[in-house]
Order: sequence, then C-alpha cells, then structure tokens
Amino acid sequence: MDAIQNTRGLELQVVVSSGMLLERFGQAASVVKEDGFKISEEVYTSIEGENPLTMTQSVAVGLMQLAPVINRLNPDVVITIGDRYETIATAIAGAYMNKIVAHVQGGELTGTIDESVRHAITKLSHLHFTATQKSRERVIRMGENPKYVFNTGCPSIDLVRNSDLSRSRLVKTKLGGLGQVDLAKEYVVVMQHPVTTEFGSGFDQMRETLEAIKSLKMQTLMLWPNPDAGSDEISKAIRLFREDRPDFPVQFFKNIEPEDFAAILNNASCLIGNSSSFIREGSFLGTPAVEIGSRQTNREHAANVIYASYLAQDILKKVKAQIKHGRYKSSNIYGDGRAGEKIAEYIAGTNPPVQKTFYEA
Amino acid sequence: MDAIQNTRGLELQVVVSSGMLLERFGQAASVVKEDGFKISEEVYTSIEGENPLTMTQSVAVGLMQLAPVINRLNPDVVITIGDRYETIATAIAGAYMNKIVAHVQGGELTGTIDESVRHAITKLSHLHFTATQKSRERVIRMGENPKYVFNTGCPSIDLVRNSDLSRSRLVKTKLGGLGQVDLAKEYVVVMQHPVTTEFGSGFDQMRETLEAIKSLKMQTLMLWPNPDAGSDEISKAIRLFREDRPDFPVQFFKNIEPEDFAAILNNASCLIGNSSSFIREGSFLGTPAVEIGSRQTNREHAANVIYASYLAQDILKKVKAQIKHGRYKSSNIYGDGRAGEKIAEYIAGTNPPVQKTFYEA
Amino acid sequence: MDAIQNTRGLELQVVVSSGMLLERFGQAASVVKEDGFKISEEVYTSIEGENPLTMTQSVAVGLMQLAPVINRLNPDVVITIGDRYETIATAIAGAYMNKIVAHVQGGELTGTIDESVRHAITKLSHLHFTATQKSRERVIRMGENPKYVFNTGCPSIDLVRNSDLSRSRLVKTKLGGLGQVDLAKEYVVVMQHPVTTEFGSGFDQMRETLEAIKSLKMQTLMLWPNPDAGSDEISKAIRLFREDRPDFPVQFFKNIEPEDFAAILNNASCLIGNSSSFIREGSFLGTPAVEIGSRQTNREHAANVIYASYLAQDILKKVKAQIKHGRYKSSNIYGDGRAGEKIAEYIAGTNPPVQKTFYEA
Amino acid sequence: MDAIQNTRGLELQVVVSSGMLLERFGQAASVVKEDGFKISEEVYTSIEGENPLTMTQSVAVGLMQLAPVINRLNPDVVITIGDRYETIATAIAGAYMNKIVAHVQGGELTGTIDESVRHAITKLSHLHFTATQKSRERVIRMGENPKYVFNTGCPSIDLVRNSDLSRSRLVKTKLGGLGQVDLAKEYVVVMQHPVTTEFGSGFDQMRETLEAIKSLKMQTLMLWPNPDAGSDEISKAIRLFREDRPDFPVQFFKNIEPEDFAAILNNASCLIGNSSSFIREGSFLGTPAVEIGSRQTNREHAANVIYASYLAQDILKKVKAQIKHGRYKSSNIYGDGRAGEKIAEYIAGTNPPVQKTFYEA
Repeated sequence: MDAIQNTRGLELQVVVSSGMLLERFGQAASVVKEDGFKISEEVYTSIEGENPLTMTQSVAVGLMQLAPVINRLNPDVVITIGDRYETIATAIAGAYMNKIVAHVQGGELTGTIDESVRHAITKLSHLHFTATQKSRERVIRMGENPKYVFNTGCPSIDLVRNSDLSRSRLVKTKLGGLGQVDLAKEYVVVMQHPVTTEFGSGFDQMRETLEAIKSLKMQTLMLWPNPDAGSDEISKAIRLFREDRPDFPVQFFKNIEPEDFAAILNNASCLIGNSSSFIREGSFLGTPAVEIGSRQTNREHAANVIYASYLAQDILKKVKAQIKHGRYKSSNIYGDGRAGEKIAEYIAGTNPPVQKTFYEA
Repeated sequence: MDAIQNTRGLELQVVVSSGMLLERFGQAASVVKEDGFKISEEVYTSIEGENPLTMTQSVAVGLMQLAPVINRLNPDVVITIGDRYETIATAIAGAYMNKIVAHVQGGELTGTIDESVRHAITKLSHLHFTATQKSRERVIRMGENPKYVFNTGCPSIDLVRNSDLSRSRLVKTKLGGLGQVDLAKEYVVVMQHPVTTEFGSGFDQMRETLEAIKSLKMQTLMLWPNPDAGSDEISKAIRLFREDRPDFPVQFFKNIEPEDFAAILNNASCLIGNSSSFIREGSFLGTPAVEIGSRQTNREHAANVIYASYLAQDILKKVKAQIKHGRYKSSNIYGDGRAGEKIAEYIAGTNPPVQKTFYEA
Repeated sequence: MDAIQNTRGLELQVVVSSGMLLERFGQAASVVKEDGFKISEEVYTSIEGENPLTMTQSVAVGLMQLAPVINRLNPDVVITIGDRYETIATAIAGAYMNKIVAHVQGGELTGTIDESVRHAITKLSHLHFTATQKSRERVIRMGENPKYVFNTGCPSIDLVRNSDLSRSRLVKTKLGGLGQVDLAKEYVVVMQHPVTTEFGSGFDQMRETLEAIKSLKMQTLMLWPNPDAGSDEISKAIRLFREDRPDFPVQFFKNIEPEDFAAILNNASCLIGNSSSFIREGSFLGTPAVEIGSRQTNREHAANVIYASYLAQDILKKVKAQIKHGRYKSSNIYGDGRAGEKIAEYIAGTNPPVQKTFYEA
Repeated sequence: MDAIQNTRGLELQVVVSSGMLLERFGQAASVVKEDGFKISEEVYTSIEGENPLTMTQSVAVGLMQLAPVINRLNPDVVITIGDRYETIATAIAGAYMNKIVAHVQGGELTGTIDESVRHAITKLSHLHFTATQKSRERVIRMGENPKYVFNTGCPSIDLVRNSDLSRSRLVKTKLGGLGQVDLAKEYVVVMQHPVTTEFGSGFDQMRETLEAIKSLKMQTLMLWPNPDAGSDEISKAIRLFREDRPDFPVQFFKNIEPEDFAAILNNASCLIGNSSSFIREGSFLGTPAVEIGSRQTNREHAANVIYASYLAQDILKKVKAQIKHGRYKSSNIYGDGRAGEKIAEYIAGTNPPVQKTFYEA
C-alpha cells in the first residue's frame, strides 16, 4: 500500500474485511488506520461457526457486499492477495464487474482448500505478481499470458527487510506484557491453522503438537488459529492445554503487529506449526522451521524448513534437530524485499484487456 | 441425469436454480419434472437488474443457499456444467464443503466473463468431463491430473442423436402456435446473448444483427437472450424491431424444449448469433452457422461455423454465403452422442482425493 | 424530497431500490434523476420468481445491503414510506443501527401481507406521518407516543394538487404513443395487483376482471402488476387477454410518470382494480372507483369508492353504476396537498429518543 | 417442545440457529439433541463483529436461509420466542410465506432494540402467548384480536417448576469443575448484556458493575454476555477484571444447562446485572435481584427486583440491601409453570386466518 501511494499515476483505495476487523483476531484494521491509511470501506464477512458450511457462506456474504463496494469505488484495478475466502470473493466481484483483477501470491502449491482456491483466483485474474520464479512458471502454464505474469517476490519480505529485527528491540516492546515469557531468552513459536480438507481432525492434530511442546519444555509464543473451518477444534485443544498446564511458560497472541511479528520470527529458536510465514519470511530470515502435516506440503521453500507428520514424537524429534542446527543462510527465493515497488510499477505500466484469453504458446 | 439414474452405484439428486425456475425463461424446471425427475431443491438466485452488479450478487445469493442444500443432501459428488454464475456458485460450494466436484464442458475457449469463470471452475473441480479432445488437453495443461480428465464428448450431442429431428415432426409440433412462421418452409434461427465484458454495447450489437435480418427477409425464429448482464439491452433492440416491423415473419421464444430445439437447429437454413449450441449441436448436425462478435471467439468448431463482425453488412454477407453452401458433413468433435453414459460410468468408477494437487508431469 | 431539500436544517440523501431500478417497472429511478435529485446509492433487491419464497428473500437481500449503506451515509433520520418489502427492510436496518426511523402512511388498514408489515414498521419507527386522522389514532393506539405521530396527509395528494390534470394536456402527452387509445375520448383504468395472502388465485381473479372489461367494451388503460408474490399469475392472465383480443382498444403500461398518472386518474370514467391510488388520489380527485377483492378492504376511503367481489358480473355491474354516477365531490381525508412540507418541518423540529418506549396513556 | 410433542394433532419440527449453534455460547443445540429432539435444520446466522451493522446483517443472513427452510418443512404454524434478531427473521419469513406465526413472550416492556423488535413481531404474528396478564392486554391494545391472545405464563417457569433446585444437587453437579467457587457457600450471580441502543457505553457500564463486585468480595458466578451489538465491549471489561484480579473467587460460564441454571438462580444470595431471567424465573423463585440500567426498565416484575443505576456505588448499596433482605415470596405473575401445555393446546385448537385484520373493538 505504501508503494502504491508513492507511485505516480496510482491512487490507493483500501477495503478491509474478514478477520482484519475482528477483535478476536487482533483487529488488524486499526493498525492500518494507525499507519495513516484511509479505509474506504469495512466489510464484515465471517458467519460464525467455523465449519465448512459457514466458511462457504462467508464467501457469499463477502461477495454480496464487495460487489456494491467495487461498483461505488469504481477502481481501475482490484488487487487481492493470497488464497482465502475473502480473496476469492474479491476476485469474483472484480472479474464479473469488468475490472482488471491483480493477484499477489499466485502459483504456489500447498494443501487445504486454499490450493484449489488460489489457482481459481489465478484464472479470474488479469495481472499476476508471484512470490517465486517457479510460481510464475506455474501461472503461465495454467494459460496466463507471460507478459502479464511478474515474479516480484513476496511483499512480506519487504517488511522483514525494512524492520529492526534485533532481539534487543524485541525485548523492549514487551508485547502485551509478557508475564510468563522472557524474550531475552530462547523461545519457540507455535502457529498451527486448521486444514479445511481434514475438517474434524484438528483437535487431535493440535493435541499432538502440544504434546511435543510439553516435552520440549521451552518458552513458547503461541498464536491462535485463523478463522477457517476447524478453527474451533484447534482452539479447544489450546484451551485444554492452558487449563491443564497453567504454569507452562507460554504466551498467547491473537494477533501481532507486522514488525513485531517479523522480529519474533527472526529471534526464535524454532518455528513450529503449519504457517506459510515460516516458509516465506523464514526463508529470508533463515530461522529453522518445522512444518507439520499437509497444509504447506508442496510449497516451495528454502533450506530452513523441514517437514513433520502430525505425531508428537516426530514433531519433537524434528524440532530438536532444527534447534541443534541453528540459523540457516538467508535465501532470496521469496524475493529481495522490493516486491511492493515492483508491483506498483507494473500496475501503473501494464494495461491488460478486460476480456481474458487463454494463452497458448 | 438419465445415465446417472441408470448406473449401478449412483443415486441422482437434482437441484435446479437460476433461469430454469423463471417463467420468462420458459421455466425449464417444469420440463425436468415432466420428464419424471424428482427435484430435491429449487434455489432462486437471480437478482433482477441484469447488469454486472446484480450478476455478481446473484453468484452470492446462489452460494448462500447452495451451501446448506449441499450440506443437507450430502452428496459424494457435486456435478455442474458449463461456465455460468450458478455454475461457479455450485463449484465453490462443493469445493469448500469438501465434496468431489465434477465439471462438464471445461477447457473450452470463448469470450465474455464465461471464459475466466470456466477455467476457475476447472481449478475448483476434481473430475473433468470435456466435450472435445483439445479441451481435455487444455484442462491437463492447467495442472489437472490426466487420470481425472476425460474427453466424453458433450451431453448435448446425446440428445441430438436420440431425437427425431425430421422437419415433418417439427411441423407437427407447432411450437407455441406459430402464427407467422411456417416451419415447412425455409427459416433461419437468431439467438444472440449479451457479452458481459462488452456491457453497454449490446443494444447496438443487436440492432446490427436485426438490420441484417430485415435485409435477409427470410422466416425467422428468434430466442430471447439469457439473463446475463446486458440482457435488457438486447431485449430492448428486439422489442423495437418488433414494434417497427409488426408484419415481419418472425416468431419469438423464451425457451424451447430440448428435443424441439434440436429439430429446429437441424432444419434451419442458417443459425445466426452467438450461441454455443450453433457450434456444439451444430457440428454434429452440420447446420450452417454464423457466429457474430467475440462471444464464441476461440471456441473449437467444425466446418459448419464461420465468424462475422458485429456489422449488419458483414453478417448479411456471411449468412447468404452459408445458405448458399447448405448443409455440412456431420462432425464428431463434440462427441458421438454417448457422453452421458461415459460420464456416469467414470463418476461411479473414479475416486479422486478431496485434497487436490497441482499435477506436474 | 422537494420539501426536505427546501427545509432549513435538513439535508437530503436518496437511496433507490427494488422496482424503481428495474426496466420492466419503468425504471422510475431515472425519473428521480431527471428531476434533479442526486442518488446516493442504488440497491437492487428483487430475487426473481415472484412467489412467497423469493419475496421473503428479497427482504433479506435488501436488508443485507441497506445496512452498510445506512452505515456509510450515516443519516440522522431514515425515512421510509408504505408497507412493501423494501420498506420493512429499511425500517429494520434503521432501527437496529440506532437511527431515528420516520414512517409515512402508517396506521392504514388493508389486506395482503402489507397489512401486517405496515404495522410492524410502525412499531420499529420513531416518527409517524399518517395520511388520515383515523390512521393517526390507530398508530397511537398501538402504543406510539402522540407527540411523535402527525397526521400530515398523504404526499401523493401534494403531487395531484400541483399538477396540470386537464384532459387537454393529457392528450398532448401521447403517453408512449397511444396507438389504440384516444385519450380525448372516454376510458377506464385497470390496475390489479397480486394479493400475497391469496397466492395461487391471482390468475383466476384477474381473468374475472378482464371478463368484465371485455363486456364493458370501453377504451382501457391497463398497468402491469407490481412485483409481489403472484405477479406472474396476473401477468399471465393479461397476456392471454392480449393474445385473445388483439383488437381490443387497450393500452398497456409498465410505469407512468407521476404527473401523467395523476392526470390519467383524473380524467378516467372509472378506476378498476385494487390499487390504493384509487382511494388516495381518487378521494381528492373524486374519480369513481371500483375496488375489487380483499386488497383494499378496510382502507379508509371517500365516497368515490365502492367495493366489488372477484366475480366478473359483480365487477361489471359496479363499474357501470359508477360510470353512470360520474365524478364525486373532492375529499380531504387523505390530505390537503401540503403533506411534504409538513413532514419536512416536523422532521426538522422533532427529536425523539432512539430508545423507544411503549406509550401508556 | 415437550408439550408440543405430547399433544395429539401436533407434530414437532425444530430449527436451531444463531447463538445456540456456537461453541462460544455453549452450543446449546447439543443439549437439544441430548434431550432427544430431532433437529430438522441448523441455520448459522451470526456475522461476526458484534456491532449494529453486523447485528442488522445477521437478521438478513437468518432471513435468507430461514425462508427456504420454512418452504421445505412447510409447517402449519411457525413458533418463535422473544425479541432477538433471529426471532424477527423467523417472524418475517413465516408471515411472508403465508404461515400462521405464533409468538411467545410478546407484549412485554424493556429497553434496547428488543423493545421495538418485540412489538414488530407481535404485529407480524397470528397467535400470541404472553407471559403475563398485562402483556396480554398490551398485545390486544396494539390491535390484535383477543381471541388469539392467550396469557399462558412463561415457559421458563415450567422448567423451574419441574427441576430439582436444591443446593445439595447443585453442589453435586460441579458445573464445569468449579475450581475457585464452592457452591455450598454463599454466592452471587452476575449476568450483564449489552444495551444496543447505548452502543459504545458497554465497557464503562460493565466496569462499574465489576467495581461493585470487587467491593462486595463474595463468591461470584459470572456469565459472558449474549452476542448483541456491544458484546465485545462487555467481554473486554470482564477480561481486564480477570487479569487484574486473578485470585478473585469467580467462575465464568459461556452457557449453563437450563436445569442447572435454574438451581443456580434459586440458591444465589443475589442476582446482579440486566438479565430478564432475574425477573422471570426470579419472580417464581423469589431470589433477590438488582437490575442495572435501562435494559429491563419497564418490564413487569415481582417484589424480588429492585433497580440500580450504572454506578458502582449505587449497585453495591442495592445488592447489599437485597442480600440483607433475603428471599422473597414466590410470585405467579410470570405463570404457574404450565405454559408449555397451554401453548400446545391452544395451537392445536385455534385456527386464525392467514390474512390478519386490525382488531377494533
């Protein structure tokens, strides 16, 4: 958003929706406002329930409201990022309303419903800004015109690159008053989201991870799961852990401001769970990470990542190995930290036709 | 639907929605009932307005209601056909709710928003039944696993193949009391739908076509346009034509029963407009067709089709040439008329995983 | 809207929705624009189908979209008129969002679902502007505080009072090119809407009315029904009549501009159907009217109205009696033609609390 | 529901929605299932956000889904209870779809948006089962026909009457493992919901109540607020209290099973907050209660209730006075505990017309 605002010929309009507006996910929208961005519209989309039915209907609620918002704001380009339900709602609204749709982070491979949704968004989009070279190739292979597919790297790396990630600064922030955790000492980060295509297994999956954490006995920063179908299952396992082990040195977070989050990733001894940030930001930072289960299967990654099954024993073993290994060399596969400006420039300088055509080389 | 009912191991559940339920599109749902199919649910999806905004919101209305319907009917496979707004609503609902989504008519190339939507549906679907060999190749190229992509031909050909298409039968049906048209004599068919990505141009486009029709001075069967964004524009041009030329030998139709429609296509001197049926059924029948404008651009076709611009002069010239040429040889590019049974058999015999994986050869 | 714009301290924001936006109801929104009003938002609400299910869901579609519109426009007062599905959607949105809701035309008695909906809207509203004295008493009886209930008369009378209603002007307008009807000669007006609580009977009801019209053999201006559940049934009867009697001197209208409509009512020999305008504007104009069936049962009326059953014979007899009687004396029961300015003044000068209290004298 | 099942001529169909389905409100739907009731449909309605906008849109989401559910289940009578957003959604759906709507708990007086919504529901309903005699009179005064308005008492009293409310049983249940609270000893109950028409003040209001609780220094059972607009504000105050006073003898509840809840109310030293249960069940039980603020203002109550402002000092003083006074005599103003069977009998034996008529004595 910074880069777009700073690019001649572009005007920024911001629509926030879904989890960004919700208190229980830390209300990231307020961070956007504090950073000085004007929010043109807030669109509440999440039907409570966190199961496949409500997740599907949340796409509908988002779509119903985003259509008139796009109609009113009347942008030339609708930019959307990732592969979540509000992303596909945005892409459908933009495409049906004859806007140029620009998609960031297309062409990547993962598990969960995100895998299908991400590629569907690619086929609805006119401009593609991929985070890796292989992703670019995959987007082109799907029939997109190479001249509208750009490997810019991932914007998340930009933020990492431009932040003070030192442990000393981190210690000073005292995120939310860290009663039980001392950031000056070693800690691990746990962040495990539901796998929508394995709905119903989340509780058991998370219990195994927490079993490993108990055995590891290190300081732990734990983030609550995102609001996909199955979120409740994981939260329940975490709450039982919290009640069961009130004295464990763990601190819980609903949301962490982007810069602090980058610093936390940077100084962790190991990243544990199934977050894509361990792969993206992690590749650049070189922080050891253990990706659990199928959610990030197939995602392109640097050397810092190893995979584990859902079993506590396996998780524990891999985490210990990673901690023993220590930091990895920084990798640029997810970009060099200048994605934002590249994306803004390409948007300003490219004029794809509204009518898409399947590209056959 | 017949083939599914007749296949051991499959049970049919039918959900009808969108235009099929509407009186002004001939209420095709009642034909379904008359044919003896039980309808499990009727889902009204169309927000009136026929512009890009209401078309987008109609996706949302469909999605909101299809989600609980799929939840309740709890099918193993959700089958959807084509590339329209109710199709993508169905595919999203099926995919998010962890059902196997089977898509018919994927991989084809056209214009309008359908082009984007069709490929997005492919990326949300687990089983693919394409109408042509090239479509199959395109679906695979987009990253679908070849073992779940079948070129079965198009089910519309099945119906053509199994119907009595003779002019003598057609004359007997007296479709809706054809006051001004004598089906025993030569006639042309006009069927022109809106091009959503050219919203705002439909009125002028249709006026040119009608100008050509006026000059052609042949008996004409004309179908009202489908309810996409821009439908009103085209209808308006038709109504003006009707008021302007009350004596022209033209008969209007909201909807025609499938068998009669096939017979009409078969006995026409020329098919004029931008309907895909001129290409699909037309290829098998060998009826000369003139496809106007961008809507069917790029769609694979047999020798019976030639393309025209939106200009009356060009249309008239091409139509005359086609009439002069007369019938073409039947082609099998859209199938041999056994698509239904093939699709049913593959559905019964194939078990793709719910978690999709991008296929990299 | 004129009066609000002209009142010191008030600023007008206009939201149009539902039938006003639809081509098949004459797109009244464009009249609003031509009259120089700025439209802040257009909200499409009507799910096609015109049955009880789609009518209910249209309330939902309206409500879903009106909520963010009210949130964004942030008015002090939300004004809504009548008793239709978009009206209750507006009242619910206004009330839940802690706005002062002002309701015009409350307290009247009729048939159909409107009867229930109108009083429900009263109970959601803070300010009440009734069209008659008895309506005011009824609103108060329902527990509304008398100091917030004003009998201002009906705004529809304002328009009648300020228009040139002469036959000579009417003849000049040549509404839509009146091929078959000569407005300089005698004519009747037919306007019959569906009765939602008698869904399924509309076709037969309308057929009886048209039977009477056939026997009457007078020039007829006929309006298509509004889009309530059952609209299709009535339209179907009209279309059959049109096909059956192509030479009958009848002219059909989707919508008529307000001033022309008033002139038409004024110069008609008799008004036939179940429109409330026959009672409202009719009372002031003194035009003889025959109200058919239950739709306007119980509505307060002047001497110009008599009631008929749904039977052709009865309708015909009553119409002939009314034509014989000729014009009635003008009545002020629906106001003196200054409702607009009174409403605007009361809105500017009254400050009811957001928290409503049941008024117990 | 028990009574309906046991009444000859009635068949029960159950639709659960809204908070009953949500984990964070204790998922009451599972209690319904455990009690042996078959649930015909689960309808998720709550858009997260808990502000006036999302509350309004939750009505829309409920309505959109309830309409096809009612269409499919096709009941003769739609029964709904209370005054919440899912209640008005149900009443609108029932009324527009030409079903008889039966409303329980109409005619009462309170604060918040519930006050408006409750009376609007009355005007949409055909059968009325009020909890008190005065409520019955008020429903009639609003224009309802006395022969369809029955004072049956409140069904909540039925449950109280038929439960073992003894402290000894309560102690045995050990609700959720009451770590910090001993139910064998004295305790108070705190239950404070948001006041939607005072949105934005909830945090301060709750802080005052919690200030009083701190000074009172008694064992406390505290329930989380319902999901109305403003819920987050109250929850936030509670969480701060919990962090601030980790050692305070307080136990938190998301939901309590009905029988246990009745026993808790029965054995409490004082009930503090703004719950209607303190008035309803409280009247029959005679438990001293302090109603805070405007939410229950005007609600008919027995001697057990006194009112307090939002100020901590006032709350503390009133609570101490109530504890000193001790139990009150049981009152029957909210019924004698036989409401269920009366309601079932009246439903089975009454046949109001679908077309409502304003009753003018």
